[in-house]
Amino acid sequence: MIKNIAGKDFLLSSRTAKRLYSDYAERMPIIDFHCHLSPAEIAGDKRFSDIGELMLGADHYKWRAMRSFGIDEKYITGDAPFRDKFRKFAGMLPYAAGNPLYAWTHLELARYFGIEEALDARSADRIYDRCGELLAGPGFSAKELILRSNVEVVCTTDDPADSLIHHKKIREDSRFGVKVLPAFRPDRAVNIRERGVWKKCMEELGAEDYPGLLSALDASMKRFGELGCRLSDHGLQRLTFRTGDPEAVFKKAIGGGEITPDEEDVFITSLMTELGRRYAEAGWCMQLHLGPMRNNNTAMFGKVGRDAGFDAIGDPVDISSLSRFLDGLAAEDRLPKTVLYSLDGNDLCRLCALMGCFQEGPVRSKIQLGPAWWFNDQRDGMEAQLRALANLGVIGGFVGMLTDSRSFLSYTRHEYFRRILCALVGGWIDGGEYPDDPDTAGRLIGDICYHNAKNYFGF
Amino acid sequence: MIKNIAGKDFLLSSRTAKRLYSDYAERMPIIDFHCHLSPAEIAGDKRFSDIGELMLGADHYKWRAMRSFGIDEKYITGDAPFRDKFRKFAGMLPYAAGNPLYAWTHLELARYFGIEEALDARSADRIYDRCGELLAGPGFSAKELILRSNVEVVCTTDDPADSLIHHKKIREDSRFGVKVLPAFRPDRAVNIRERGVWKKCMEELGAEDYPGLLSALDASMKRFGELGCRLSDHGLQRLTFRTGDPEAVFKKAIGGGEITPDEEDVFITSLMTELGRRYAEAGWCMQLHLGPMRNNNTAMFGKVGRDAGFDAIGDPVDISSLSRFLDGLAAEDRLPKTVLYSLDGNDLCRLCALMGCFQEGPVRSKIQLGPAWWFNDQRDGMEAQLRALANLGVIGGFVGMLTDSRSFLSYTRHEYFRRILCALVGGWIDGGEYPDDPDTAGRLIGDICYHNAKNYFGF
Amino acid sequence: MIKNIAGKDFLLSSRTAKRLYSDYAERMPIIDFHCHLSPAEIAGDKRFSDIGELMLGADHYKWRAMRSFGIDEKYITGDAPFRDKFRKFAGMLPYAAGNPLYAWTHLELARYFGIEEALDARSADRIYDRCGELLAGPGFSAKELILRSNVEVVCTTDDPADSLIHHKKIREDSRFGVKVLPAFRPDRAVNIRERGVWKKCMEELGAEDYPGLLSALDASMKRFGELGCRLSDHGLQRLTFRTGDPEAVFKKAIGGGEITPDEEDVFITSLMTELGRRYAEAGWCMQLHLGPMRNNNTAMFGKVGRDAGFDAIGDPVDISSLSRFLDGLAAEDRLPKTVLYSLDGNDLCRLCALMGCFQEGPVRSKIQLGPAWWFNDQRDGMEAQLRALANLGVIGGFVGMLTDSRSFLSYTRHEYFRRILCALVGGWIDGGEYPDDPDTAGRLIGDICYHNAKNYFGF
Repeated sequence: MIKNIAGKDFLLSSRTAKRLYSDYAERMPIIDFHCHLSPAEIAGDKRFSDIGELMLGADHYKWRAMRSFGIDEKYITGDAPFRDKFRKFAGMLPYAAGNPLYAWTHLELARYFGIEEALDARSADRIYDRCGELLAGPGFSAKELILRSNVEVVCTTDDPADSLIHHKKIREDSRFGVKVLPAFRPDRAVNIRERGVWKKCMEELGAEDYPGLLSALDASMKRFGELGCRLSDHGLQRLTFRTGDPEAVFKKAIGGGEITPDEEDVFITSLMTELGRRYAEAGWCMQLHLGPMRNNNTAMFGKVGRDAGFDAIGDPVDISSLSRFLDGLAAEDRLPKTVLYSLDGNDLCRLCALMGCFQEGPVRSKIQLGPAWWFNDQRDGMEAQLRALANLGVIGGFVGMLTDSRSFLSYTRHEYFRRILCALVGGWIDGGEYPDDPDTAGRLIGDICYHNAKNYFGF
Repeated sequence: MIKNIAGKDFLLSSRTAKRLYSDYAERMPIIDFHCHLSPAEIAGDKRFSDIGELMLGADHYKWRAMRSFGIDEKYITGDAPFRDKFRKFAGMLPYAAGNPLYAWTHLELARYFGIEEALDARSADRIYDRCGELLAGPGFSAKELILRSNVEVVCTTDDPADSLIHHKKIREDSRFGVKVLPAFRPDRAVNIRERGVWKKCMEELGAEDYPGLLSALDASMKRFGELGCRLSDHGLQRLTFRTGDPEAVFKKAIGGGEITPDEEDVFITSLMTELGRRYAEAGWCMQLHLGPMRNNNTAMFGKVGRDAGFDAIGDPVDISSLSRFLDGLAAEDRLPKTVLYSLDGNDLCRLCALMGCFQEGPVRSKIQLGPAWWFNDQRDGMEAQLRALANLGVIGGFVGMLTDSRSFLSYTRHEYFRRILCALVGGWIDGGEYPDDPDTAGRLIGDICYHNAKNYFGF
Repeated sequence: MIKNIAGKDFLLSSRTAKRLYSDYAERMPIIDFHCHLSPAEIAGDKRFSDIGELMLGADHYKWRAMRSFGIDEKYITGDAPFRDKFRKFAGMLPYAAGNPLYAWTHLELARYFGIEEALDARSADRIYDRCGELLAGPGFSAKELILRSNVEVVCTTDDPADSLIHHKKIREDSRFGVKVLPAFRPDRAVNIRERGVWKKCMEELGAEDYPGLLSALDASMKRFGELGCRLSDHGLQRLTFRTGDPEAVFKKAIGGGEITPDEEDVFITSLMTELGRRYAEAGWCMQLHLGPMRNNNTAMFGKVGRDAGFDAIGDPVDISSLSRFLDGLAAEDRLPKTVLYSLDGNDLCRLCALMGCFQEGPVRSKIQLGPAWWFNDQRDGMEAQLRALANLGVIGGFVGMLTDSRSFLSYTRHEYFRRILCALVGGWIDGGEYPDDPDTAGRLIGDICYHNAKNYFGF
């Protein structure tokens, strides 16, 4: 007999853990402070007709797993019908034991579709058809999925040049009570390493020199702020601290001259510092996503483009550069609230130790260790992140989980996280390491699942 | 009362794990796709008269442990009689709690000799004598040990200059049904850093220039292929990607000129790329063993030579070099099946993430994360390897364990691995993370223990 | 109902673990071979009137946690009364779940003050007052706390220029049977990177050139040796092996000339080698603490100075430099007993693998992996250290735990460690991996908790 996957006691092996989850975690609202949902799809209250499209249309985690199983690209990013893609995916899934995809898929099927059987080659068509019926009915539009998930705040990820027209439209729907806020992600403007994309961004922002770029970003931040933006976000392959003359680098780069990697570092260091000051003044939080190594497979990049599953984990964080960057802002008393993410799980303790050097009141846990990110977004990665933070910091100040997702079904990742959190705290209680009373364990869990994010970001 | 070491439930703490092991893992044949057994010893069906010689004669793991316990080198690589060496080893063993040697030794005593008591100073002589009696009887020759271990395929590790005469002889024994195949390991030819060894290899291969070297390796690959070779193998302290003119480097090096580390990198990058193309065309698998730091103790190197326990773990893998190397082959559509091993356990997730960028059908898991290697070949290392692969890849495509050993008793390492695998999968089942049915968990375990290796390598 | 924190079964989840702890670990004397206690406070048999001062007066771990919780610096290193500081600390503590501070604080309250309730905002004043009453009575002076803790040896940490007057005074108290020995820590003399501090040290030592420095250190070692010193200790941000002319570097540096980072490396490599030789000849142990990144927050460094919680974890150990340094001494047969600590937990296996290359009799485990240090001094860090050592070395030779502390209440950290050790060994026994008899498990635990340190250091 097949035991329920993702059932009531999923990931909760002790009685204490079960109780903690049902008493303190399960019913907390969700604050999803970082995701890649499309504001247009929310504004348009998009509907989906096909579980294949919904699950496989844009998910490079699933594409990678399918490639690892030897499935032809036709059924991954190719032109096969979604039913066939779903069959291929279902046939692979039982081999992805221990992968977060296995858990996520079954959580999504169970929580949104009420389907509790395991997805595999045998059940693929039955599940595909049943989901299709349900998708045609009520409860499955973008806004309905968000509302069904008990979500209070969603922060999308937006370019400074974005008109934010969809965010305005979402705000105008007074019956939809969820805050959908933009987050400011000026990657194209910062990443002068990718010259073509950077130049196009300068054009869109009308920036002809370095001061012009700063003014344009100021204007953009003002627009974002008016729509409730509370966070910025930066994706950086590496952050190498180097001082110099950013105006000269800008001039060379915009004029098409050759600039050296050192000059790129000067530009990035300077612009990140300028932005950090502005975030501090605006009371925004600065998120730093450090360490990916992108587009490793040239042939596949040519065929299917970026963000299609060909990125990897790069070198560990340059910790002394990060220290100098934060220190420069702190020395001016303009270090903003900061969330540090590294793609390299080996960096967790290093980041926690550095964070502790820049914590200061009155904000609780002003510098945060970001929740397990991307390749680390799985049970072991989450446990490692929680344990590192507990061991080296004050876990009770942690702002908790996010989805980082493009899908409206991904809110189950918050459930996944909460179960892991409760199992961890339950273990401490059972080992005599932590008290089991509502005012202590209860508050800790409630704060991490919900209250901390609300207070820290100021929603 | 002393509980049985390595007993029936060894490493299997839950009922589910026990059942998985006995139902799906225990009786699977062994495919040992990478080891250092001597083809001559197999061909000659060597017999051993002394458990001391058998266990301590060539095992640098055990030598290191004995040195760590403060035992005099006389009893390690020196001229003490094997009975005395065995006594010293036995006296040390209880202090090696948690070390794989503790488990391996007791598994070997239990499975091959039926000895279930703990080995220590008190039992040393009794066990030594009992093993001596058994070794004199039937069942303990090289071929008999292999047959008793349910082995189907053995891949040895062989130099391109090897005549493969012993492999031919093994093939001619039609009553010995085990496939013993050569694997192609051109380390001496690739590693131009060690000039003296390299030059000697060039002489043996009759290679006077770079094209001549390639021709000689082609000829050698042909010979290996005719004897069923399916894998190559490379041990590389580091792989630093650098393009340039390998012919010029060859010419300088063979003429006795000084070459720079950068030139060495050029040669190695180029030759590895040439070989990668050839492996792809031959349908062979390319194994990369990355990251050892060799011969750290100059004084002991002078006394006892190489491979005697004075190697260590070097720097982490240069992940961007590895990416460029694989990408270069993939861009030509000549990336062979590849197994990546790093000696640095911190590299596991980095390797998994990179692997995902180069997976492609129709092969299942074309790029493999090698099983826990050398210093990582222990319970925690195996669990870490399995978890990394599960979290970031598709564990169901994994080709499983190998012995990497010089000893005919090491097949118990497959049992060790299978027990750890079943404990891991059992934990997932018990946590509601994975279904407990024969077609799912059963197939997963059977594939990893046996079927994947058979299909992937094409035995 | 609140379960006892730090109760009888604290950290011991299995029956085997409980038995191992009570039979073999609990009553072992303590050898604290590395701490930062003040010899003056021991000599003067200092008393404390206030648990706030005792707990918060000098503990940068607690300061960091309080900053992470957003508490104003006034209540951390500022001028607020200790009662208020203690209240703030108590209010933070429940949020530091999983942090070693949580365990340590409750162990200290339970073992020294008999207080078994959880410390939080509600209990803060009650506990503060109760501790104040007890501190006024017998049993709480420096010497009494040491004696109550079953301590046999304490090694402090002392500068070569120190007069050791307090150590002499402690020796003269014939009723105080605890050995309090100096340990030799010439950091100011070695660390030429911090020029001002180094020059002041040269003045104090009367060293006008490099040979003069060596003579001064020789004289100091002689004085230390006469008071029973058995260990040296070095804190090194990094050790980069580089040969050259240290006399020339000394001359330039003392004359106020500019010296390059490479020249600093030459000086440090040479002086460390000179010291290593001397330690070997004296039979002392050499401790290397590698990898901190200091004084990251310039603004706070200006306000509250060094060692106040603004240090972090730097880059991983330069393993090839460390190898060359040890090899140089081994080649002369003058490698001393050595304990290797890295602040980067990712270095554990790398260090273990390297250690194995330099082990040699007759000393048992001549090269030691230091116990979990600083940021790693917590349950997960200790387990990782023990597991790395077990997997790659011979754990039965390990010299065990130390406090590394400035506080007289920190001996509970030995209890914390012993419980974790017994849980680990208990797990091996329960899994059929290790025999459960007094001569094996009992000896292993007793050796690690007490006998190994006594024998290895020669107390």
